[in-house]
Amino acid sequence: MKLIDRRMRLTELLLRCSISVFALLALILVVTDTEVKLIFTIKKTAKYTDMKAVVFLVVANGIAAVYSLLQSVRCVVGTMKGKVLFSKPLAWAFFSGDQAMAYLNVAAIAATAESGVIAREGEEDLQWMRVCTMYGKFCNQMAIGVSSALLASIAMVFVSCISAFSLFRLYGATKDRRTTPW
Amino acid sequence: MKLIDRRMRLTELLLRCSISVFALLALILVVTDTEVKLIFTIKKTAKYTDMKAVVFLVVANGIAAVYSLLQSVRCVVGTMKGKVLFSKPLAWAFFSGDQAMAYLNVAAIAATAESGVIAREGEEDLQWMRVCTMYGKFCNQMAIGVSSALLASIAMVFVSCISAFSLFRLYGATKDRRTTPW
Repeated sequence: MKLIDRRMRLTELLLRCSISVFALLALILVVTDTEVKLIFTIKKTAKYTDMKAVVFLVVANGIAAVYSLLQSVRCVVGTMKGKVLFSKPLAWAFFSGDQAMAYLNVAAIAATAESGVIAREGEEDLQWMRVCTMYGKFCNQMAIGVSSALLASIAMVFVSCISAFSLFRLYGATKDRRTTPW
Repeated sequence: MKLIDRRMRLTELLLRCSISVFALLALILVVTDTEVKLIFTIKKTAKYTDMKAVVFLVVANGIAAVYSLLQSVRCVVGTMKGKVLFSKPLAWAFFSGDQAMAYLNVAAIAATAESGVIAREGEEDLQWMRVCTMYGKFCNQMAIGVSSALLASIAMVFVSCISAFSLFRLYGATKDRRTTPW
């Protein structure tokens, strides 16, 4: 096997393992994040289910962690068996799965980041008050969790480029097609 | 030129033109969206700049509309000149640009959708009150604008698949590599 293919496979495996790790870390940080405050003798608890976008983030990262774990196992097993057969239908399945994962997690992070900005700065014109002044610890742990999710989704973007490469090179262009008129 | 290439080029051109149209439509609908209300003798005006996510959406759609217009012109000119030379560096540039556009707009829509959900339903636990009960017309026009932006970003996802195809098939896999051990 050419050096470039060996490197590509190793990069893919490392990226998929890091996705599982970062997605799982994000999940744990966000789900275990809670802070209790006493406001005029009323006990108030901040938790991740208070924001719809964060629930979406937890679900998206859960799916990504499991999907990437399975893909990593597939990569390792395929390597040990010495059989990395790449049929077009299979390549299309991995490419579509990787693209869906990447876009799903980018959307989840963007929605959560929007909620985070409102929670930190408020939205004055709409009278949505900031909450992080009261729940500082909760917001900080949430920020670390979202950063971990961001790292996972950056890795997902690169993995989807690798699976695009693995797929579309199977449609290898012949010389004449590259300079034809249309 | 093979039929598949002819169809691919036509699909690409149609998708890029529709991105420009939908992105521009979204831009116009969102930027011209305003509603005035009299609340206890105080005149209050709802406008798109009240929400940070919507400003992000406007910027992202503006960039996408211009980028896609230029790409459409490139497609048409390349066709008329009968010269669609596809060098790897150029293919990498278009692929990267298309991927960036797609992820940028998916993120912008997710952030705006999150604000929209809060505006329509409120976020009770955080005492963020819903606003669409008061600014019904504003919210409805915003929803149409975001839907148009959503159509544009779906087209961007497909265009980025086409540019991935055009790029990575230039790295056409040779027969032996496909069944090698690693």
